[in-house]
Amino acid sequence: MDSLLAGVRILDLTRVLAGPYASMVLADLGAEVIKVELPGSGDESRGYGPFQNGESAYFTSVNRGKKSVTIDLRQERGRDLALGLAETCDVLVENFRPGSMDRFGLGYETVHAKCPQLVYASISGFGQTGPYAQRPAYDVLIQAMGGLASITGEPNSSPVRVGSSIADLSAALFGAVGILAALQRASRTGEGQQIDISMLDCQVALLENALARYAVSGEVPQPLGSRHPAITPFQFFVASDGHIVLAAGNDGLWRKLCTALGLLDLIEDPRFADNALRTENHAELEPLLAEVLAGKTVAEWCEMLVQVGVPSGPLYDVGQVFNDQQIAAREMIVEIDHPIAGRQAMPNSPLKFSQTPIQLQTPAPLLGQHTEEVLRDMLDLGADEITELRADGVI
Amino acid sequence: MDSLLAGVRILDLTRVLAGPYASMVLADLGAEVIKVELPGSGDESRGYGPFQNGESAYFTSVNRGKKSVTIDLRQERGRDLALGLAETCDVLVENFRPGSMDRFGLGYETVHAKCPQLVYASISGFGQTGPYAQRPAYDVLIQAMGGLASITGEPNSSPVRVGSSIADLSAALFGAVGILAALQRASRTGEGQQIDISMLDCQVALLENALARYAVSGEVPQPLGSRHPAITPFQFFVASDGHIVLAAGNDGLWRKLCTALGLLDLIEDPRFADNALRTENHAELEPLLAEVLAGKTVAEWCEMLVQVGVPSGPLYDVGQVFNDQQIAAREMIVEIDHPIAGRQAMPNSPLKFSQTPIQLQTPAPLLGQHTEEVLRDMLDLGADEITELRADGVI
Repeated sequence: MDSLLAGVRILDLTRVLAGPYASMVLADLGAEVIKVELPGSGDESRGYGPFQNGESAYFTSVNRGKKSVTIDLRQERGRDLALGLAETCDVLVENFRPGSMDRFGLGYETVHAKCPQLVYASISGFGQTGPYAQRPAYDVLIQAMGGLASITGEPNSSPVRVGSSIADLSAALFGAVGILAALQRASRTGEGQQIDISMLDCQVALLENALARYAVSGEVPQPLGSRHPAITPFQFFVASDGHIVLAAGNDGLWRKLCTALGLLDLIEDPRFADNALRTENHAELEPLLAEVLAGKTVAEWCEMLVQVGVPSGPLYDVGQVFNDQQIAAREMIVEIDHPIAGRQAMPNSPLKFSQTPIQLQTPAPLLGQHTEEVLRDMLDLGADEITELRADGVI
Repeated sequence: MDSLLAGVRILDLTRVLAGPYASMVLADLGAEVIKVELPGSGDESRGYGPFQNGESAYFTSVNRGKKSVTIDLRQERGRDLALGLAETCDVLVENFRPGSMDRFGLGYETVHAKCPQLVYASISGFGQTGPYAQRPAYDVLIQAMGGLASITGEPNSSPVRVGSSIADLSAALFGAVGILAALQRASRTGEGQQIDISMLDCQVALLENALARYAVSGEVPQPLGSRHPAITPFQFFVASDGHIVLAAGNDGLWRKLCTALGLLDLIEDPRFADNALRTENHAELEPLLAEVLAGKTVAEWCEMLVQVGVPSGPLYDVGQVFNDQQIAAREMIVEIDHPIAGRQAMPNSPLKFSQTPIQLQTPAPLLGQHTEEVLRDMLDLGADEITELRADGVI
């Protein structure tokens, strides 16, 4: 059984999260990913917790299935090694701050001249162009400057960060989309190109309804707790033993919900006659629902509501997610053996293909684990050269 | 100049957000997307606000560049039309509840038998398999059951929903990745396949660090306000006129930050000697930083910190995002003329290609705008047949 991206080789010059997640998605799909790390220290996320037998689970969970080659790109001989590897690859992906690749002698123009077919993807905080291009960025900053934080949180309270690094992860996913699309064209035309992915741009792309609302009305969207700005009821409520979620996305579901809750009079109530009115009058509606919902457990309500087809469910913590039967049935937690950390549980790929299912088995690499193998097999370097490069701190 | 996905045709049986966003990403890349809608009412999101001249900006912002064909899939002749269209397409994407496509006579096995090369992508709340497969789902429910809500919000407070529909949007992006990867293999081998995307699976995939932490330690991650679980300081603070974000992701940045804030003694403070210690002792560190940061405006701090290379910036509301100079320089807000709504501003694609830049110009379709054109050109139907189908309510 062949893999989806069989034969695709990626030179991975990424660190921390956005870049590594993008190349992980492609590695999961069967691409060969050669991760270049700084000799000695490597990807700085190797120093981020949590640790398992001293190995960063932050690092291992987003670098599974890759090879690690140590190369100091700041040295001329390191640059030459990277250029040589690029010539054997289909994709180069990097997430240095704009300008760094030029300083290494690995800027797009240089690499493109040598490898015209190569897809060269750059992921950065603010993009390669524009007045903020040179600024350093991390997820929390982009969540804040991209507007997502301003619409996340309780009403009239401080905004909060989304609990996972969604600015990194969305840039990674857009990056993977861009790389695959550009690969398709490169295989058709023989022409590679640069893809310039900005985490901030990706956040704007994901504002969707909030940006549309601002553009149409001029009103600045505010944080709404668990409520949706345009659909009601579509939020969390408190049942007798925890939070329950209701999502009555259309009028049919609204009527089913009222029936199940024994609130038949609400169906005829002119304040709640359609979704727009329910949203407008949400403050009057919520206490009526909350009062009834407080009377049974989450499990009791969910069983009743799911049976009549009203989207509802429990609010899970991460431990409950980890142990849920649907997650188990979907094999969404995968365990991979790591030579130092031991057996590690991590999220599986959510891409479930009928003919070429993804099978994750290879752990994240140790720092420089594949340096000799890659330099020997791909660049035909001899043992003496490798020893000398190592002695000189190039690899 | 060719587009990236020139020649790729997609039969789009999706509604609301996750499916339409996936096909929008592919339409932006140049694929021809034929959206099938129910005669009379169409995609239910045509009824979601905000409205511009009566047209839903929710709908128009995620359906730009597509064609709309009305077909009632519940009727046998409607099913036959859809099957006929599938034979002319490279991809079918749908986000009905599992089982619906089978009831229409358009299940994967049926379609695959007729169109073996077709990539058939199904996006659903819980996936095509597992005990919850048949349950209805919406974004807020998946945010809650996927654990993201449980780590988003203020500490010791109610969890909140991420302000944009991240469960839909991440499934859309994974869907686009899966479709492009499967297309690449289909063009190589001639074999299509089904891709089974579950919104819940995608949320698990995006838990990253939180899931790794739980797996390693057994500790259930909690909401942390704006703070990062493993990096400190990496959060929002209050300056004299609003919120400022600091993201000191490594020890070098930490030292630069202390220097810029005039807190040189903190550099030598053993409680804050490395990132792990700063995270452990964040409650002692935060007031020390907050006190100093309250003394200047956001703009003053940002200018000073950006100059020395410390990632920092303002917390923007959606209006500020809309009007920011970097967003403008990146052309991330695009205006498209719609025949009824008029000129509409919406997020541009964040995929910036050097050789084949994306140019969005075509608005979202009116309901059924392309029915006759598509049935005539792709299925060779005559005017009389089209009139009869319309009279019979099939289209």
